[in-house]
Amino acid sequence: MTVEDIRTLGSPVMPSRGRQRPLGLTDVVLTGGFWARLQDANAAATLRHCEEWMEKLGWLANFDRVADGTTGPDRPGWSFSDSEVYKLVEAYAWEHGRSGDPAADEAVRRLTARIGRAQDVDGYLNTAFGHADQPPRYSDLEMGHELYCVGHLLQAAVARLRTTGADELVAIAQCAADHVCATFGPDGNQGICGHPEIEVGLAEFGRALGEDRYLEQARLFLDRRGHGTLRDISLGRAYFQDDTPIREASTWRGHAVRALYLTAAAVDVAVERDDPELLAAVERQWTNAVARRTYLTGGMGSRHQDEGFGEDWELPPDRAYCETCAGIASVMVSWRLFLATGDVRYADLMERTFFNVLAASPRADGRAFFYANPLHQRTAGAVADDSEVNPRAEGGVRAAWFDVSCCPTNVARTLAAWHTHVATVGERELTLLQYASAHIEAPGGLAIEVTTAYPDNGHVSVRITRAPSGPVTLRLRVPPWATGAELAEGGRCSTVTPGFAVIDRELVTGETIELTLPMTPRFTWPDHRIDAVRGCVAVERGPLVLCAESLDLPPGATLDDVRVDARVSPSERDGTVTVHAMTDPAPAEPWPYAPASAGTRGLASTELPLIPYHRWAERGPAAMRVWLPVHAEPDLP
Amino acid sequence: MTVEDIRTLGSPVMPSRGRQRPLGLTDVVLTGGFWARLQDANAAATLRHCEEWMEKLGWLANFDRVADGTTGPDRPGWSFSDSEVYKLVEAYAWEHGRSGDPAADEAVRRLTARIGRAQDVDGYLNTAFGHADQPPRYSDLEMGHELYCVGHLLQAAVARLRTTGADELVAIAQCAADHVCATFGPDGNQGICGHPEIEVGLAEFGRALGEDRYLEQARLFLDRRGHGTLRDISLGRAYFQDDTPIREASTWRGHAVRALYLTAAAVDVAVERDDPELLAAVERQWTNAVARRTYLTGGMGSRHQDEGFGEDWELPPDRAYCETCAGIASVMVSWRLFLATGDVRYADLMERTFFNVLAASPRADGRAFFYANPLHQRTAGAVADDSEVNPRAEGGVRAAWFDVSCCPTNVARTLAAWHTHVATVGERELTLLQYASAHIEAPGGLAIEVTTAYPDNGHVSVRITRAPSGPVTLRLRVPPWATGAELAEGGRCSTVTPGFAVIDRELVTGETIELTLPMTPRFTWPDHRIDAVRGCVAVERGPLVLCAESLDLPPGATLDDVRVDARVSPSERDGTVTVHAMTDPAPAEPWPYAPASAGTRGLASTELPLIPYHRWAERGPAAMRVWLPVHAEPDLP
Repeated sequence: MTVEDIRTLGSPVMPSRGRQRPLGLTDVVLTGGFWARLQDANAAATLRHCEEWMEKLGWLANFDRVADGTTGPDRPGWSFSDSEVYKLVEAYAWEHGRSGDPAADEAVRRLTARIGRAQDVDGYLNTAFGHADQPPRYSDLEMGHELYCVGHLLQAAVARLRTTGADELVAIAQCAADHVCATFGPDGNQGICGHPEIEVGLAEFGRALGEDRYLEQARLFLDRRGHGTLRDISLGRAYFQDDTPIREASTWRGHAVRALYLTAAAVDVAVERDDPELLAAVERQWTNAVARRTYLTGGMGSRHQDEGFGEDWELPPDRAYCETCAGIASVMVSWRLFLATGDVRYADLMERTFFNVLAASPRADGRAFFYANPLHQRTAGAVADDSEVNPRAEGGVRAAWFDVSCCPTNVARTLAAWHTHVATVGERELTLLQYASAHIEAPGGLAIEVTTAYPDNGHVSVRITRAPSGPVTLRLRVPPWATGAELAEGGRCSTVTPGFAVIDRELVTGETIELTLPMTPRFTWPDHRIDAVRGCVAVERGPLVLCAESLDLPPGATLDDVRVDARVSPSERDGTVTVHAMTDPAPAEPWPYAPASAGTRGLASTELPLIPYHRWAERGPAAMRVWLPVHAEPDLP
Repeated sequence: MTVEDIRTLGSPVMPSRGRQRPLGLTDVVLTGGFWARLQDANAAATLRHCEEWMEKLGWLANFDRVADGTTGPDRPGWSFSDSEVYKLVEAYAWEHGRSGDPAADEAVRRLTARIGRAQDVDGYLNTAFGHADQPPRYSDLEMGHELYCVGHLLQAAVARLRTTGADELVAIAQCAADHVCATFGPDGNQGICGHPEIEVGLAEFGRALGEDRYLEQARLFLDRRGHGTLRDISLGRAYFQDDTPIREASTWRGHAVRALYLTAAAVDVAVERDDPELLAAVERQWTNAVARRTYLTGGMGSRHQDEGFGEDWELPPDRAYCETCAGIASVMVSWRLFLATGDVRYADLMERTFFNVLAASPRADGRAFFYANPLHQRTAGAVADDSEVNPRAEGGVRAAWFDVSCCPTNVARTLAAWHTHVATVGERELTLLQYASAHIEAPGGLAIEVTTAYPDNGHVSVRITRAPSGPVTLRLRVPPWATGAELAEGGRCSTVTPGFAVIDRELVTGETIELTLPMTPRFTWPDHRIDAVRGCVAVERGPLVLCAESLDLPPGATLDDVRVDARVSPSERDGTVTVHAMTDPAPAEPWPYAPASAGTRGLASTELPLIPYHRWAERGPAAMRVWLPVHAEPDLP
């Protein structure tokens, strides 16, 4: 193939088949609102912020030192720090494609030049292995992350291919991918990488170049996994999903980001190889993990020890890990499944995860991030110093940079292309999945303008700015919580049920379709098998999970003391949601286990304000709870 | 001093002052029952079991290889494996002192000879540092454990000093202790060890030899700690208690065993230096941690990630770490505090921890052990293979040996001297703290024989086998749960309240005193701030925490389905305790968070048998719960 064949305005995931097709990067343009603000902060601050940190810490200079032959055992950064550079390049590339900002293009070129100088003549590219005084290539497949880094390089090259066409970065990536295929092909090293990512990188790079060899190598890596191919480690082989073949597994387990990156690649292979058995296996795993191993926020990963899924029903809110990267990886999986199957449940989970994991991570200025996203902070964290690297992925305060700093660059690349998840197309069909003010151009001549203040309120206005002749199908996703949603179109107003509201007729240029989603705050109750939040209730409003912060408590009260009267529905006034609550500041007993249930003592009633979970800790360190202990429950209907 | 000065039948902890004094190793002889069985299995199986494993894994040969100059980077075992050998020597030494078994004495001599050959001429002794191709001495104070290992060597030497008098092991230990003092003294290396233990070892060795220098070095190590003396690590300096000086800390935090070994040494220093401020600091930490960071079993350590205490009220039953060694370390602290203060609460917690942590660890045959002691096992673990090293400290099945195998040798040394915790003496006073059938000889001519089937039942019979002339005080501990306990003595029967039942008169040889503790099974409720067990109840019987195992459920039910009707008290028939429970096998919903609390559906009533927690997993892998979700609560009085 030649460069001319390459579609230059693609989007991150472009399967060759599927029930739904993605739009291109500039087919959707955000015009304001919640996600435009996040995207603007990303462009204005986060990209440069990441580059500056990686320059300061020497992670960029690692490439120069390999090129100059001066690297060695004193190389700074974890073995996988190259991947952060590639994720940043990917983010810059999408940002350049989206906005046309020449500075972003220049950044890609600047970084590409440094990366390229470090590549060995046979295509091997890594700054932590294989050079003077470093461990040999592929000497630690379990934890070395060499193939993982290449996977991120390939995703960066995909971004470049689909925004500017082939360039030096793409050439570097091709050399690296060819080296991987030559080294790990059917007759080569039979290993796999301890951290999946090469698979999803190879699959998309193969799709972007029309190069089947890369897809085949991805399939090979997938099929090798799950047979004890890697050495056992103290966390067990489930940590890197090498315990059970992906076709046989019933749920996600082990390290959450690893499990989800692997699953994303499995969807790609299943779709491209027309492998319904593999697709069914992935759908089964999604179904089981979402039913029993997922937090109300959409967050995944219950354990700090291995950054991993716990067991079914093991969902502690305080020790929830819910890594930002795992939320992004969950979106990667659900997006691919939605494109393959058209099943609305995947888009539903994406919205939940976008608003309550992805949006929670970056600070408003785009210069600090949450890594873990617990649903309960017991004590206010320390104030973070923006000039320091945070050694720990916890603490209840957004940090400028981390010792393991996977999340900032992952947020950056995801936000730069966030708008590509807003809508999909089918045969004479446009489906609106996420609600944001935007211009959308669909193939076949349909253009619309969406205007909304969602999620501040539930009104979504869709104006047809250009209608094609003949009937088209316009579908608007109605979230599962939106009981009583209303659709006004063609002079009719009707109630629509969760799923898709469908308009199937010839549209008229200039007409407006109005969807109204109910945004009354509501109580949400957990399954009784989720031990860690038994006797608690949460409050949601539209797609937003709400939380209580200690800053809003009456003087002298702590979040440990609060109990909600769930007989009184949450109320909203002047944009503030409150619940009717009591505080019970009972002193701690010498031994906290007693022969009789203590009941309640000295209750003081209060109206407790709640805020969106994604905004927590914005006013400084605070204790926080999503799940609120219940003092009194409503009678069952 | 000379060997003749050394008291040869001492016990592990012998402060030079304090409200209570310990008895010597042979002053108490167990004659049967619960603890005698554990002690017999320890003597008959565990000691040899540990030695065989350490021989097989090369941990013993590490000493030979240092002596022979053949050690190197291929040295097997963790850096701290020497300490397991020393703990085993300590166990053999107490066992020899207790039983007079010549094989145990021979084992001490056999191991001492191999240890001694590895000691450098300047007293340094470690098989992981300081020799050919090994890291230099003290090059990793944070995680290298060199001083930690010496601490255990000193405790082994104490056991030898107090059972046989000075020998080759004591000479080795003196050289090692002198080397530590020379290297880390006031003008030397200002470092401390990342894992406290040298402090408690130096303090007791100093007491045993009457060598104040050692105690002074322990004090120096204690006072250096808490000022950021060690390098920061990703788990934070609280991990090794180097965040806050021990005099200023309000509670225990970080790695539980580290925190508790350190605290034990602090009590020793406080007592020997007559330092009420330091003693008060330790008592404050005990009070706060027991009120808010301790499990119903007495277990400590809420987190797997750092084997550490969590925050206040963070007490998840499923992810409870409750390391066996932390239970032992908690007993070390409480025992020292009891001897110093005479406060009964320390003995109360010791009993709880003995029955529900220490006794839970060893399998009945003494050849497999729990490392972690969670209060909830969600899914049955895999069957353990006794021939394999368990790489992970979890799994719900007792394992023969661990990759990090601190617990088996800690259990061994603690059980060998367990009976020294049964009673203490004061001026013409004998206090019975733990109930077990035993002969007890007190100074001043008092001898008693205790006969009891405790904890199977609550009858404790104390026969005076030799009464001194004149009045004496005999005190019997009444546990805090023993409301309605009865004491029959001198022809009178009276109700006694928790604390001490006191008999203060002239005793008569041959008379019998009877204490009856109520053993009716009872519900126990958690403080409402312990989020993880909200809406649950536990059942206790006497000193035993009970639990439900999945093996006892009706067909088709799982522990996730069980809910207790707490309006009906637990009952006991033919030695089996049951609770009235329902099972609610509701299927999982696709999304486990719903707009209405589900209530109960299709409840089936059952009488659920409970077993002592310390016996769980004895019948094979099983799911298990201590805290049982409540279906209906009793009305408050």
